[in-house]
Amino acid sequence: MIFRYPNGKPYKPDKQIKENKQQSITYSNRGMTLEEDLNETNKYYLENQIAVIHKKPTPVQIVHVDYPRRSAAVIKEAYFKQSSTTDYNGIYKGKYIDFEAKETKNKTSFPLQNFHEHQIEHMKNILHHGGISFVILSAFNQYYFLEATHLLTFWERQSAGGRKSISMKEIAELAYKIPLGYQARIDYLKIIDKLYF
Amino acid sequence: MIFRYPNGKPYKPDKQIKENKQQSITYSNRGMTLEEDLNETNKYYLENQIAVIHKKPTPVQIVHVDYPRRSAAVIKEAYFKQSSTTDYNGIYKGKYIDFEAKETKNKTSFPLQNFHEHQIEHMKNILHHGGISFVILSAFNQYYFLEATHLLTFWERQSAGGRKSISMKEIAELAYKIPLGYQARIDYLKIIDKLYF
Repeated sequence: MIFRYPNGKPYKPDKQIKENKQQSITYSNRGMTLEEDLNETNKYYLENQIAVIHKKPTPVQIVHVDYPRRSAAVIKEAYFKQSSTTDYNGIYKGKYIDFEAKETKNKTSFPLQNFHEHQIEHMKNILHHGGISFVILSAFNQYYFLEATHLLTFWERQSAGGRKSISMKEIAELAYKIPLGYQARIDYLKIIDKLYF
Repeated sequence: MIFRYPNGKPYKPDKQIKENKQQSITYSNRGMTLEEDLNETNKYYLENQIAVIHKKPTPVQIVHVDYPRRSAAVIKEAYFKQSSTTDYNGIYKGKYIDFEAKETKNKTSFPLQNFHEHQIEHMKNILHHGGISFVILSAFNQYYFLEATHLLTFWERQSAGGRKSISMKEIAELAYKIPLGYQARIDYLKIIDKLYF
């Protein structure tokens, strides 16, 4: 049976409890994806005039569109395209911010196959032009902030025939843990404040 | 009859002539859209390490996806969504760049209905955080660069019950003409150089 508030919204006891306990539980139990958490975070940043950072729409190759009269156009055939950039960008304290977010279920390392050549090239370009470029990794029940410069080093190691992943130890050494917050769930700007301002 | 080069590409005499004469003809005859011209321009900027500016993908609400075995996922039902931001952003000389491009066939003014509230709010936010925000207008057989601050003024005038468009005279006074270039077709960074650096 679903209990409803006077406004018609269903009462969700589980979610309520999870939100209150947010700090103490691992994110994998919260039923929120990395993308949802980041969207919430960016919404918080925007609404509080902290930063303007958006996720780019999923790139889609549209092949066929129907235009039924008096209603919205319907896309009837389309395909997912590979992005030529990272998924998130925007502005913070006048600085250009650009990042990609990826997760792994792997328990001992972060596979580099989560990234593709175009994204790596894009990150290089952003650094070249003076932007702040990084990745947010969801791994080992934790969120991490890893500067693009380190990812580029691991990518080069792989290109030179080296390992195809970043080890847990390397992440522990080079990445910054992002604690789960209440208002800004993944408060990555705190790390940026420490590193760049 | 189609003549072909040894590499198999068809010979297109019209396009060839148009490209050579590009400076002297109006863009409406060139068979290139504003979006195509901007994509070419941004590609030139990227390849020559001048700037990293991309068009965001068209936002689409995906409703139904088919996964035929052994082939790519096919989106079978999706709808166009209104964007909550502008279409183009990126980085130039360390600065965050953000703009929208719009065209009109109208011969005497630029209708404000080409923009929507979300985009205007986005531009305000970008200015607030120290970014460079503007619009590229295609109107009266000419490309124009108009700073967001002016667009915001016209938008406010409309909200206060004033005219629903920017007059040709106002554009002539406040916007900068962008001459058609050969390598960078719509070389808007030249205007940015004059205004901000």
